[in-house]
Amino acid sequence: MTTVALVLYPGFTALDIVGPFQTLVSIPGLDVFFVSDVAGDVTDDTGRFTLKAAKSFDEVPHPDVVVPGGLHVRTATADDPVVHWLRKVHPTTTWTTSVCTGAVYLALAGLLEGIASNTHWAFYDRLEALGAHPTEQRVVVVGKIITAAGVSAGIDMGLTLVSFLVNDDVAKMVQLAIEYDPQPPFDTGAPSKVSPEMLKASRRAMGIE
Amino acid sequence: MTTVALVLYPGFTALDIVGPFQTLVSIPGLDVFFVSDVAGDVTDDTGRFTLKAAKSFDEVPHPDVVVPGGLHVRTATADDPVVHWLRKVHPTTTWTTSVCTGAVYLALAGLLEGIASNTHWAFYDRLEALGAHPTEQRVVVVGKIITAAGVSAGIDMGLTLVSFLVNDDVAKMVQLAIEYDPQPPFDTGAPSKVSPEMLKASRRAMGIE
Repeated sequence: MTTVALVLYPGFTALDIVGPFQTLVSIPGLDVFFVSDVAGDVTDDTGRFTLKAAKSFDEVPHPDVVVPGGLHVRTATADDPVVHWLRKVHPTTTWTTSVCTGAVYLALAGLLEGIASNTHWAFYDRLEALGAHPTEQRVVVVGKIITAAGVSAGIDMGLTLVSFLVNDDVAKMVQLAIEYDPQPPFDTGAPSKVSPEMLKASRRAMGIE
Repeated sequence: MTTVALVLYPGFTALDIVGPFQTLVSIPGLDVFFVSDVAGDVTDDTGRFTLKAAKSFDEVPHPDVVVPGGLHVRTATADDPVVHWLRKVHPTTTWTTSVCTGAVYLALAGLLEGIASNTHWAFYDRLEALGAHPTEQRVVVVGKIITAAGVSAGIDMGLTLVSFLVNDDVAKMVQLAIEYDPQPPFDTGAPSKVSPEMLKASRRAMGIE
């Protein structure tokens, strides 16, 4: 059984972790669950989404790992429980992965030093300041580390992870099962596709100046 | 304040409702929360995802509504608490919407009689048997009823709903904030894109024969 630990922490972003959850959870041979510093209820960055962590970090010494993002990372330091746990478990993972600003935790744990990686577009500076090389690629694979772009990129990352953990055919079936044939109503999903004004307004709406 | 009630019931599918949640929750002027027959913990169709409903159906008489799907709908009847509540609140909603097999609840409530609507591809027959006209269109808008395709289509539906509830510019900014610039690793997200063998295997994996 392959253990896939989906990390929760106060202030996580819901869709970041639910994309990987939904793509991975139904695969035979994978034991997929939510983990946090303390088991039990964990609330997201909007205060409206409370999800239960089945296990505590202490109970999960040898997982594969998916770390979501959240606006909370703005103030996260190397002393964060997520960072401590990542340092401990990373040596024995098959894959250590992040979605969105979850990459900041990986960087704080020293795992992205000098390597190509992605995060939410509004956090390239933060990632760079921590020694990583931010790269505008939806899903970035370097050795056993996979980092993805913001929020919704967790679905693309999750499918990629299924193809690595199992095979392409199973990943294709999952994509069919979740009917992932995206048809966004607009073409504004990446910073390179919008005006500087919209970028600025979007940063402001997220509380990042 | 516009009230947007995201429906939970035992056996819902997580990504179905988290797509709309993430696209709607941060919009000023919208009060977005989870609602269920009884307030408190509700567990999904995998048994691994327990989310808290902030309110009970009784506490929410005049919402706009988003209903997710779940494999549970196979056995749902017109006596289901979700169906009872939908019948009660639909007359005063601005929008009544579903993702995936959530459309089955709308149909059981008599809201899709004779109209074009969508659901998960494996449930077209069920929807048709309830008097609806299943349509292979990602997001279907008929009057004040919006139905979407399976699971991940909730993101496209959510953005569409933002554009209706507020305006296109805000919806575009949300799409940027969640970095929704999808790059699926395969092209197998719709039934028309895969072989009959894969369709059959996928139905079997979902427990639908």
